Amino acid sequence: MKIKPLGDRVVIKKIEVEEKTKSGIVLPSSAKEQPQMAEVIAVGSGIANDEKKKEELKVGDKVIFSKYAGTEVKVDGEEYTILKLIDILAVIE
Amino acid sequence: MKIKPLGDRVVIKKIEVEEKTKSGIVLPSSAKEQPQMAEVIAVGSGIANDEKKKEELKVGDKVIFSKYAGTEVKVDGEEYTILKLIDILAVIE
Amino acid sequence: MKIKPLGDRVVIKKIEVEEKTKSGIVLPSSAKEQPQMAEVIAVGSGIANDEKKKEELKVGDKVIFSKYAGTEVKVDGEEYTILKLIDILAVIE
Amino acid sequence: MKIKPLGDRVVIKKIEVEEKTKSGIVLPSSAKEQPQMAEVIAVGSGIANDEKKKEELKVGDKVIFSKYAGTEVKVDGEEYTILKLIDILAVIE
Amino acid sequence: MKIKPLGDRVVIKKIEVEEKTKSGIVLPSSAKEQPQMAEVIAVGSGIANDEKKKEELKVGDKVIFSKYAGTEVKVDGEEYTILKLIDILAVIE
Amino acid sequence: MKIKPLGDRVVIKKIEVEEKTKSGIVLPSSAKEQPQMAEVIAVGSGIANDEKKKEELKVGDKVIFSKYAGTEVKVDGEEYTILKLIDILAVIE
Amino acid sequence: MKIKPLGDRVVIKKIEVEEKTKSGIVLPSSAKEQPQMAEVIAVGSGIANDEKKKEELKVGDKVIFSKYAGTEVKVDGEEYTILKLIDILAVIE
Repeated sequence: MKIKPLGDRVVIKKIEVEEKTKSGIVLPSSAKEQPQMAEVIAVGSGIANDEKKKEELKVGDKVIFSKYAGTEVKVDGEEYTILKLIDILAVIE
Repeated sequence: MKIKPLGDRVVIKKIEVEEKTKSGIVLPSSAKEQPQMAEVIAVGSGIANDEKKKEELKVGDKVIFSKYAGTEVKVDGEEYTILKLIDILAVIE
Repeated sequence: MKIKPLGDRVVIKKIEVEEKTKSGIVLPSSAKEQPQMAEVIAVGSGIANDEKKKEELKVGDKVIFSKYAGTEVKVDGEEYTILKLIDILAVIE
Repeated sequence: MKIKPLGDRVVIKKIEVEEKTKSGIVLPSSAKEQPQMAEVIAVGSGIANDEKKKEELKVGDKVIFSKYAGTEVKVDGEEYTILKLIDILAVIE
Repeated sequence: MKIKPLGDRVVIKKIEVEEKTKSGIVLPSSAKEQPQMAEVIAVGSGIANDEKKKEELKVGDKVIFSKYAGTEVKVDGEEYTILKLIDILAVIE
Repeated sequence: MKIKPLGDRVVIKKIEVEEKTKSGIVLPSSAKEQPQMAEVIAVGSGIANDEKKKEELKVGDKVIFSKYAGTEVKVDGEEYTILKLIDILAVIE
Repeated sequence: MKIKPLGDRVVIKKIEVEEKTKSGIVLPSSAKEQPQMAEVIAVGSGIANDEKKKEELKVGDKVIFSKYAGTEVKVDGEEYTILKLIDILAVIE
């Protein structure tokens, strides 16, 4: 199965980042406060068909997104987030 | 009887997905938190007459929709949901 | 007396649908939760003079409308609801 | 003195309608829940100078208006309501 | 000193109207519920330079304004109210 | 250091006005309820490059501004307020 | 790693300013109420490709920004804030 987001929406898959605190304890991601990183899995036709928008974001990009944005979905046992382009803050290169 | 949604609205019929939890119990759909899947039954003329919109969504498509969106209606004993195109998150292919 | 709605408004008359519950009791319409059906009595000039809108909705159509929308009025002893076209969800054919 | 409403505003004068309840008691208008009827006294230049709007509403029309809309004013001992055209629901003919 | 309101703003000076209640008592204006009358002292360039707006409102006009609108200012010991044109309901002629 | 406000923003410096109450006591400005006066220190390029806006407001103007608008900043030990042009009510001449 | 903000967003890095209070105590920045200063690290393509916007703000500029705006992110151990151009109040020269 493949998720095709509508309009200006994007499908992303969160990237879990292990992180040591100063005292050396590894925090599971749920204990961290930062916005999360993710990889872009699919972009809607509102992005793919817009010259400016498709230049800014493409499948495979690593992105920082607004943590409370979007809807989580599970397809074929994998968890994804569907959110709007406006909720993608930046691309990490 | 046939439901013809107005404007940018869509009529969908929910697809009940049986799902086993990790411990093997089958949850009825009301106990699950995920956005639901549905099949598109009819699209309004605001979609059917718009080149871009009708390319994105057509009758028969399996979709993921925003769970709290739309109005539930019962026609000829069958339950449907009427919602706006903007509340359809993605098409599943 | 005749009600002529202004702008994009519509005058409708509710259709009371008797309905048996599973246990056989007939519920008066006030005990039901569904959006109600109605018949279109008059449409405003904002609809009548717009090619696209008048194609979607005309006097005599059976419609499903958003239950909490509109204002109820009594003219010549008959009860009507005046609401905006945007609050009409679908036409039943 | 004459009230000249600005923009898309309308000056109306409420019409008190005596009404018998089913049990025969005549309710003063303050005990009734319905939107009130009124007569149009003056229309602003935003209506008078707009072809479409002036066709919909003119001085002397009997109208149904949204009960909580507008501001009540007293001029020369007479009470009027100044409200926006958008708060006039329908014309009664 | 002279106040020159910016944009679509208007400077007005309230007119105190003594008024007898039915029982003959003269109410000071603070005990009355009605929107107040005022005289237009100055209009902003957004009105003075707009053909339609300057036709509707000019310095010296007696107006009815929305009681809770605007900001009260004291210049040279005199109290004025600065408010937007949209908060002027009507001109009294 | 010089503050260059962005867009339609303005940098102002408040003018403290000593004022005698009727009983002769001089109130410090924090005890007064009026919107404050200020002098315009700098205007953003959204104003400087707009024919109509730059005609309404320029550096050196004495203005009345909406008391709760804007952000206070301290630069080189001096306090300024950065606010939007829309929050400047009037110019005092 | 490099952060590329999307649209009209900007990546800034806060500048910590040590400041003596009147009594001579040095306040850490968390005890101060002022909007903070920052240096612009990167601007989105919505700014870089817009003649007017790129004239107002460029990489390296010292800016005053609205303290509660934006999202803090940590990249390669360094803390940044991603915010919209509209939340940058002024440039300090």
